[in-house]
Amino acid sequence: MATFDYKDKKIHYELHGEGAPLLLLNGIMMSTLSWHSFIAPLSANNQLILVDFIDQGQSARNPDEAYTLDLQVDVIKELLSHLGIACVSIAGISYGGNVALKFAAAYPDKVHRLMIFNAAAKTGAWLRELGQSWTAAAGDPVQFYNTTIPIIYSQEFYNGGPDWVKVRRDFLTTQVFTNKLFMDGIVRLTRSADDYDVEAQLCNITAKTLLVASESDPITPPGDQYKLRDLIKDSDLVLLPGVGHATMYERPALFISLITGFANAKLEGLVV
Amino acid sequence: MATFDYKDKKIHYELHGEGAPLLLLNGIMMSTLSWHSFIAPLSANNQLILVDFIDQGQSARNPDEAYTLDLQVDVIKELLSHLGIACVSIAGISYGGNVALKFAAAYPDKVHRLMIFNAAAKTGAWLRELGQSWTAAAGDPVQFYNTTIPIIYSQEFYNGGPDWVKVRRDFLTTQVFTNKLFMDGIVRLTRSADDYDVEAQLCNITAKTLLVASESDPITPPGDQYKLRDLIKDSDLVLLPGVGHATMYERPALFISLITGFANAKLEGLVV
Amino acid sequence: MATFDYKDKKIHYELHGEGAPLLLLNGIMMSTLSWHSFIAPLSANNQLILVDFIDQGQSARNPDEAYTLDLQVDVIKELLSHLGIACVSIAGISYGGNVALKFAAAYPDKVHRLMIFNAAAKTGAWLRELGQSWTAAAGDPVQFYNTTIPIIYSQEFYNGGPDWVKVRRDFLTTQVFTNKLFMDGIVRLTRSADDYDVEAQLCNITAKTLLVASESDPITPPGDQYKLRDLIKDSDLVLLPGVGHATMYERPALFISLITGFANAKLEGLVV
Amino acid sequence: MATFDYKDKKIHYELHGEGAPLLLLNGIMMSTLSWHSFIAPLSANNQLILVDFIDQGQSARNPDEAYTLDLQVDVIKELLSHLGIACVSIAGISYGGNVALKFAAAYPDKVHRLMIFNAAAKTGAWLRELGQSWTAAAGDPVQFYNTTIPIIYSQEFYNGGPDWVKVRRDFLTTQVFTNKLFMDGIVRLTRSADDYDVEAQLCNITAKTLLVASESDPITPPGDQYKLRDLIKDSDLVLLPGVGHATMYERPALFISLITGFANAKLEGLVV
Repeated sequence: MATFDYKDKKIHYELHGEGAPLLLLNGIMMSTLSWHSFIAPLSANNQLILVDFIDQGQSARNPDEAYTLDLQVDVIKELLSHLGIACVSIAGISYGGNVALKFAAAYPDKVHRLMIFNAAAKTGAWLRELGQSWTAAAGDPVQFYNTTIPIIYSQEFYNGGPDWVKVRRDFLTTQVFTNKLFMDGIVRLTRSADDYDVEAQLCNITAKTLLVASESDPITPPGDQYKLRDLIKDSDLVLLPGVGHATMYERPALFISLITGFANAKLEGLVV
Repeated sequence: MATFDYKDKKIHYELHGEGAPLLLLNGIMMSTLSWHSFIAPLSANNQLILVDFIDQGQSARNPDEAYTLDLQVDVIKELLSHLGIACVSIAGISYGGNVALKFAAAYPDKVHRLMIFNAAAKTGAWLRELGQSWTAAAGDPVQFYNTTIPIIYSQEFYNGGPDWVKVRRDFLTTQVFTNKLFMDGIVRLTRSADDYDVEAQLCNITAKTLLVASESDPITPPGDQYKLRDLIKDSDLVLLPGVGHATMYERPALFISLITGFANAKLEGLVV
Repeated sequence: MATFDYKDKKIHYELHGEGAPLLLLNGIMMSTLSWHSFIAPLSANNQLILVDFIDQGQSARNPDEAYTLDLQVDVIKELLSHLGIACVSIAGISYGGNVALKFAAAYPDKVHRLMIFNAAAKTGAWLRELGQSWTAAAGDPVQFYNTTIPIIYSQEFYNGGPDWVKVRRDFLTTQVFTNKLFMDGIVRLTRSADDYDVEAQLCNITAKTLLVASESDPITPPGDQYKLRDLIKDSDLVLLPGVGHATMYERPALFISLITGFANAKLEGLVV
Repeated sequence: MATFDYKDKKIHYELHGEGAPLLLLNGIMMSTLSWHSFIAPLSANNQLILVDFIDQGQSARNPDEAYTLDLQVDVIKELLSHLGIACVSIAGISYGGNVALKFAAAYPDKVHRLMIFNAAAKTGAWLRELGQSWTAAAGDPVQFYNTTIPIIYSQEFYNGGPDWVKVRRDFLTTQVFTNKLFMDGIVRLTRSADDYDVEAQLCNITAKTLLVASESDPITPPGDQYKLRDLIKDSDLVLLPGVGHATMYERPALFISLITGFANAKLEGLVV
């Protein structure tokens, strides 16, 4: 548990384990706390770095001005500088995947391996309007739950675990979505992605890249990952049948395995 | 343009063209007006029957008591009786597909061919909660638009037609979702599907059945249509790559062709 | 049953039924006899035209010189001229689909609707070498069966019908693949497709086109049909899950329905 | 480089690196030599064990009697006993995947993690007849190449690398398929799988299992891996779009990453 100062803002981060550094970037509703169960496995072979983006978790809020993903990219650059890390493997999901793509395109030399789950090259009209339905519902916890949560999961997973759903629904609608500080952050984070578009910069990425598409993810559907594969030079794609947008919750063991393997495999000089 | 009395309620229906009868059943936000462009092609070879369900279009409202899809099934049965039609081919999409499945399971002898687009065997927790987000947003036209419309379309289609989206968005948020009579009907229709479950009755369907799955439809994803195929004896399945939930708007020519062909092909006695 | 003279060669063709003309083009191992069960349904709404390509069925052989698909395209053009048909809908499968694509690209005004099953834009190295394994096995009926037949069918279909397989295996290995005239034709037809490549001409096709991809077809896999869709202006694509290369045998009712609907739907002026 | 005696037969095996043991099982046309490029990466974190099955590579031949996969399973059991290894992670592809499944079902306590590429629960009629086309072509190197090699690769990969294909074609048809010892082994190995069927024993597998399906693999198509997933309790599935049967050659980096990650991830006690 530590912080560093990004300009006038405290940024919360955590270091776990030893080995080659592995940075894990959060989805929009997540925080370092969301990775609780993943810390042990992901720090077994690597120095795991968790961080709350601005407006997330225990990091500072940024209510005074509109910002874009570039701000979060800059936070990551400064964090690595603060830690004295020259090159890192990055795994990012959703919003965190988008930040990871922008970072890898802007600072290709700083990225060893890139693992992108449920992200996209840009925010299209569809996703922007979905985002608007989220921000508009932010004042009503139950409405916010119904508007955001089902669509994040595959029907197969969501319907298969009624207890999981019920426990989580109660927790989120009474403990989380009632928290104005949290919700205001979500609204700003959502807006920060409104004009996200890294498509033209993807050609700059030199890191070996793993793209993970979830078959039943309407938010960042497989087509988005196929497009990333076509535009990122040294990339490989896997598709997870029957999985929704929150891959790490629907398939935790697979999520951990994919990251552990791709971040650490010795692939230099491989010729078959 | 005609009506018949279902108990104390006026039901609006339309007959177009001549030939073997073909009944087209609406999705939840649709009405007979939604099929304007489809009337000429679908009545070219058949007597096309359009109908507004209770709480839809020009049919009567039913605000006084909760109801289920069984009510709509009964309306269809009475309509056919009123028209003196003993056996009909039915094409239904979404809510209309669910009603068609229930009808074909309850009255197998009355159905010649069955064509099901974007439907499911039952309403699971996921879809029920999505429905709740819709009904909760019903009082705010823009919020209702953002909550319901993007998810109905594939990102590919929605993002590909900015003018289409803009025109439609303006029309819906100012002319349609502002109409309290319309919106109250939507809320009741949505609730009427909350406990829909025809799974155990699907084995009763004897009609040759075409199931159409749209690859990018999160509301009734392909898995739902695969399940229908497994449970309906004489069924065939096609998958439409890159298409969302509103198949008739995203691929009108294909929608018309699939219905025209499957309703009218002479398949009796076919042995290969 | 009739013939016309294409230069010095007799071409066998058949006309069935009345209505808008519909031309059905054979796969490489087929002949007009292969469509026996399809004649009644496909001639119910159309004048169905069947034809044996050169080196097929009851048409003349062409052992004296190498030829390409252009020869068969020219045969089709002359057949239509002989019949006085100015414009026709064409359904073709595999080799017949390739000829149909070439014909529609060369004579766009002569094609009303185009329905392509299990075809491709060109013969790549993979398919050419597969073809070589076929022609090399042509002298041994059992080896020819094992080399060509399983790969034509999906495992699901092939394994699901042991009697179907056994009956067919016996018939083919004792009655068909033992016929030197038949086998010599197959070898020449296979070679005629070795350098097939219509990719650059696909932009000339103006006919409304239906592309049917079979999910479990390794010979002309779905990717081939996706590519055709991208290159043919007015085209729509459907995917048949679990179906192999011989779509008309694995899903006869669906095959007939798709053709009946797409050839005859009244789509002119459709605006949604 | 070492051997051990399995009854009266020398079995060739190799040990590379240190760490938790990882056994890699060959496809039917492979040998320990086939893994040349994979040894460094796969032995970086594990003690990698390579082995030639009976009738493969540098292991003994078995021409005198018919055998089944049970023989190879017994060889693996004796090899592990010889090495004093109580529990091992196993990655197997195709034939090697089938042996791995049988081994894990027979000796569940001896398997830590199981990684299955391009395998199946049983040999159906389709695959058996394909195998017959292979054994019948075994006497003619070029015919054997054309019959077996294209179908092993996706068209995308095969057509994309003309030099790769040409070099490999020349090498195989002049150096490998001309080797009678090698070819006789292939024929017997192919026959040994004719009656393979582990379906009823899959419920005995307790190892955490990764199933890898290749989208463009007609020999062991994705449906086979979906079935394995349904029958193996603790299994996860990934699908590789556009990849053929020889996954390790078409996607070597991904093959290595998937094995490295799944074999070594610390997943014990994971609860999300």
